[in-house]
Amino acid sequence: MTIRRIEPGTRMSQAVVHGDRVYLAGQVGAPGKSVTEQTTAILAEIDRLLALAGSDKSKILTAQIWLDDMRDFAEMNAVWDSWVDKANPPARATGGAPLATPDYRVEIIVVAAL
Amino acid sequence: MTIRRIEPGTRMSQAVVHGDRVYLAGQVGAPGKSVTEQTTAILAEIDRLLALAGSDKSKILTAQIWLDDMRDFAEMNAVWDSWVDKANPPARATGGAPLATPDYRVEIIVVAAL
Amino acid sequence: MTIRRIEPGTRMSQAVVHGDRVYLAGQVGAPGKSVTEQTTAILAEIDRLLALAGSDKSKILTAQIWLDDMRDFAEMNAVWDSWVDKANPPARATGGAPLATPDYRVEIIVVAAL
Repeated sequence: MTIRRIEPGTRMSQAVVHGDRVYLAGQVGAPGKSVTEQTTAILAEIDRLLALAGSDKSKILTAQIWLDDMRDFAEMNAVWDSWVDKANPPARATGGAPLATPDYRVEIIVVAAL
Repeated sequence: MTIRRIEPGTRMSQAVVHGDRVYLAGQVGAPGKSVTEQTTAILAEIDRLLALAGSDKSKILTAQIWLDDMRDFAEMNAVWDSWVDKANPPARATGGAPLATPDYRVEIIVVAAL
Repeated sequence: MTIRRIEPGTRMSQAVVHGDRVYLAGQVGAPGKSVTEQTTAILAEIDRLLALAGSDKSKILTAQIWLDDMRDFAEMNAVWDSWVDKANPPARATGGAPLATPDYRVEIIVVAAL
């Protein structure tokens, strides 16, 4: 079974396809922007990477969401709730974690079926 | 290959079955209860969701455990150790993470085979 | 499809093989050592466990890296960058999380193809 790497760099790939699943790198938005703006950008990037893999948001199996500050939970969720495929919602877990720099407020990691 | 979603809501599903694996949402216990009580409730909920998926704890592949306060590590582990299938223990990782509200002390995310 | 557990203990296994994938437990280095030393030891342990599973670092699909202190990001990355298979980099996410004790600075969780 082959492994296909999407947008590989020297440190990581943005996504890796293996068998009937695609694993995305943790996606972040523009540092310093609002939680709403970062979440919107992240979800657009997830859509883009899933399309490159031959998948889409209706096929997301699981999502981990890391927030720099859990007080941003509701603001992140508002963007998530308007984006998620309500007929096909993934399993999800959200926890607080400092990210690469404090300007990053949200990071989302998804695994999807093809 | 079909995707089956268990207890889907508008934001997430409690579990998603794809191929020969089931991905559970991060499970939490009753907020404000002790670490022992929350962990006990979480593991019972994992048993219940695995059964709905056609799996059980002997088939858990991996578990991530998030603790609001890593000083609760031993208390969580006491409950885990009495529950885990000692003949079939999963790969596991435990780290500290603030959860949805400070009343939540433990969250556990599992992936299991069917 | 069988499940093979590598170095099972009473609490967890160090790795679990199912189908064409292997899931590793969160790997840590010697507590109290430097970030460089801990990361080096973790990556050697990942190499060892992948070999036991019949895999190797060229087949890693995804890695989660937890740092006790995100200020160690660059020090961890220097070790990672010299180790990772630059032709076959995994999807990756890095976040901050307190680990089992404060002497642990880094924990890495990988999933690989066989």
